[in-house]
Amino acid sequence: MRLPPGPSAGRLRVWILACFSTRSIKMALNMKQRMDAGLSRKAARSSVSRSSVVKVRSVAAPAPPAAAVQEAKKAYGVFRLSYDTQNEDPSLTRTWKKTIKVAVTGASGNISNHLLFMLASGEVYGKDQPIALQLLGSDRSKEALEGVAMELEDSLYPLLREVSIGTDPYEVFGDADWALMIGAKPRGPGMERADLLQQNGEIFQVQGRALNDSASRNCKVLVVGNPCNTNALIAMENAPNIPRKNFHALTRLDENRAKCQLALKSGKFYTSVSRMAVWGNHSTTQVPDYINARIGGIPATDVIRDMKWFREEFTPKVALRGGALIKKWGRSSAASTAVSVADAIRALVTPTAPGDCFSSGVISDGNPYGVKEGLIFSFPCRSKGDGDYEICDDFIVDEYLRSKIRASEDELQKEKECVSHLIGMMGGSCSLRGAEDTTVPGEN
Amino acid sequence: MRLPPGPSAGRLRVWILACFSTRSIKMALNMKQRMDAGLSRKAARSSVSRSSVVKVRSVAAPAPPAAAVQEAKKAYGVFRLSYDTQNEDPSLTRTWKKTIKVAVTGASGNISNHLLFMLASGEVYGKDQPIALQLLGSDRSKEALEGVAMELEDSLYPLLREVSIGTDPYEVFGDADWALMIGAKPRGPGMERADLLQQNGEIFQVQGRALNDSASRNCKVLVVGNPCNTNALIAMENAPNIPRKNFHALTRLDENRAKCQLALKSGKFYTSVSRMAVWGNHSTTQVPDYINARIGGIPATDVIRDMKWFREEFTPKVALRGGALIKKWGRSSAASTAVSVADAIRALVTPTAPGDCFSSGVISDGNPYGVKEGLIFSFPCRSKGDGDYEICDDFIVDEYLRSKIRASEDELQKEKECVSHLIGMMGGSCSLRGAEDTTVPGEN
Repeated sequence: MRLPPGPSAGRLRVWILACFSTRSIKMALNMKQRMDAGLSRKAARSSVSRSSVVKVRSVAAPAPPAAAVQEAKKAYGVFRLSYDTQNEDPSLTRTWKKTIKVAVTGASGNISNHLLFMLASGEVYGKDQPIALQLLGSDRSKEALEGVAMELEDSLYPLLREVSIGTDPYEVFGDADWALMIGAKPRGPGMERADLLQQNGEIFQVQGRALNDSASRNCKVLVVGNPCNTNALIAMENAPNIPRKNFHALTRLDENRAKCQLALKSGKFYTSVSRMAVWGNHSTTQVPDYINARIGGIPATDVIRDMKWFREEFTPKVALRGGALIKKWGRSSAASTAVSVADAIRALVTPTAPGDCFSSGVISDGNPYGVKEGLIFSFPCRSKGDGDYEICDDFIVDEYLRSKIRASEDELQKEKECVSHLIGMMGGSCSLRGAEDTTVPGEN
Repeated sequence: MRLPPGPSAGRLRVWILACFSTRSIKMALNMKQRMDAGLSRKAARSSVSRSSVVKVRSVAAPAPPAAAVQEAKKAYGVFRLSYDTQNEDPSLTRTWKKTIKVAVTGASGNISNHLLFMLASGEVYGKDQPIALQLLGSDRSKEALEGVAMELEDSLYPLLREVSIGTDPYEVFGDADWALMIGAKPRGPGMERADLLQQNGEIFQVQGRALNDSASRNCKVLVVGNPCNTNALIAMENAPNIPRKNFHALTRLDENRAKCQLALKSGKFYTSVSRMAVWGNHSTTQVPDYINARIGGIPATDVIRDMKWFREEFTPKVALRGGALIKKWGRSSAASTAVSVADAIRALVTPTAPGDCFSSGVISDGNPYGVKEGLIFSFPCRSKGDGDYEICDDFIVDEYLRSKIRASEDELQKEKECVSHLIGMMGGSCSLRGAEDTTVPGEN
């Protein structure tokens, strides 16, 4: 595929119209967008045409053309362009839904090393939901990505119908129904939160644009890489083609940890804790909500009659759990983070129990609690199990809770101002320089 | 609890009879056994009385006595001596089976870090099977064990009803229905297989005795730590109270990898590969059996018409897969190993599909293929799903297969002779010194 000579937008448009395949149009649009974004035409072309993706499909398809076979041969492992499904057990595959495409960033990292196997096992999306995994890594982690793919092959998961790996988000997010954005730069020694916001913000700006360009129009996006609320905001603002409602920041690990702490304190098993909302930012300003939480159906504050504990110990116990774990364990809590990602997805694809909720960082637009709009803010949510959700409107917010929520809201507003240049917002200035570090420890 | 004065067996018996709780009797018997095993009474007492286990139960029970509450308070985290189950969802718990106890060694290692979460999720033993995890670590890994337990807490698995951790196998194996023996010493630089056998053999001798002493009389034992066949043999020979049939060495990872390679070579999906037996030792002398394997119900050799590939490439591809993975991935294949452990357990607790098999290293006594008795040897097996199994008797063993099986059998016999002193066998001498290293790479 060659560009017509001359750089004018008009000529480019004519050339686009002359393209006959959707793929070509998409590539051209990609290229135009990247050129608009300041890349030279040459760089844009090379960036679009480079195929760092080894991508192979498993749907029953007519015999692939010679070129495709060639491509399949280049692919390592068991995942190929087309499978002859005639030999498969129909009792297994008959009731299966259409394959969904799940893109995962930071795919060779520790959290993904747990998560990918949970996804492939059917534990998350259901035993009747075949999935395709589209794994994004960096140039540095390319070999490791292959290692992950090899381990997925050896695991023989029947529902895992396709695995592709790559380093270009525009390719890897292609037609993705879900994008699980695990990858982020960890905080280096002496790095301020403002620097972390900047560095990761740039990654999420690029990935947001790639989602906008390549992903399914109804793609659900879950950001795990920290600072996850603001990263999700940046991705969202750079992906205007995808509904704002579809972006989530992971606060489910905080919710799970909060449930565990309430169980521990009350001497009940964790399954008896419900309506455990976490409000606000996934940082130490997070607000695990003990006002609305229930233990065995009874308000938590009626079971644990110790307001001093709630006010002074509960929140730090939840927020600093990751750090406590690192001290014991010597490494960060990859497994339980992956479990909470699985829980967060499951919360959207299975109906919420009546009266219960789940916590997720979502766009605050139109929220019933007066939280400033335009922020990715964790709220109690409920879902019909269709991938969509609504913010619960029946949570009691007392004076104390409101003040805590306000502090987290203020922090998110400041984070937003620090990344204003990444989300097309004018006149923001970063007041977080020199501020106290509120990063949740052990989450990088 | 104090011992009566004087060491005579008669007085000890009287004292035992005077004990009123089963627990006391057990402790006394433990102690007697250890004294028989040559420990001084003082050492035996300290060994029995030292409680390195933080153990807590979750069954509905009357209010615990003050002492128990005290003990529960010493326990960290959410797992406590007794739970008030009245607040739990009866629709969840009504159909649950009796809780099983699963002991896991090497519990703070990489394989366990995947496996424990798979076990707790219900993916392995079933969604109606509550489990108790009893985790064994070393003094060095005690803190890490706590970290694992904390992550399990935060994961809120409803089926995980009890977690205990400890460093004494006699305590940790207590009443275990399953013992998953993941822990083993890795091969150090320049260490010969004979040395590895010796060092790990000693560990499995101790753990075998502990199983004999403490575990359920029908405990199923799966050895993953390498050299797993001979480690399993040592454990078995040191645990005469447990049926020999109950001991397994993990060759399921080899089976899974073999299936993947047949799928890859044939261009079919891995779900279409069946009857994929691995015979013999989990070492490079293993025999992945392409003679009996089927692809889409058709003999693999009729689908892949390339005997040179089968004879020269297939087996090394399977046996050296772990090494290839390390090259790509930079670390050993913990996740897919854990998946194969899960598969191996599931193979015993769910019925085998008609005509299919699974591979497991089991005692060769009475096998229908003329393999020497008294070895832990991998055979094609099938199960009714009751935890038990039988060796399939309808596999064709041609001249070629027989010669390969014989070589693996010879190796296992030699390994057995190297550990003769650990299994009460007279006159063995180790001929493996200086022999070629047949350790499967990347499995330590």
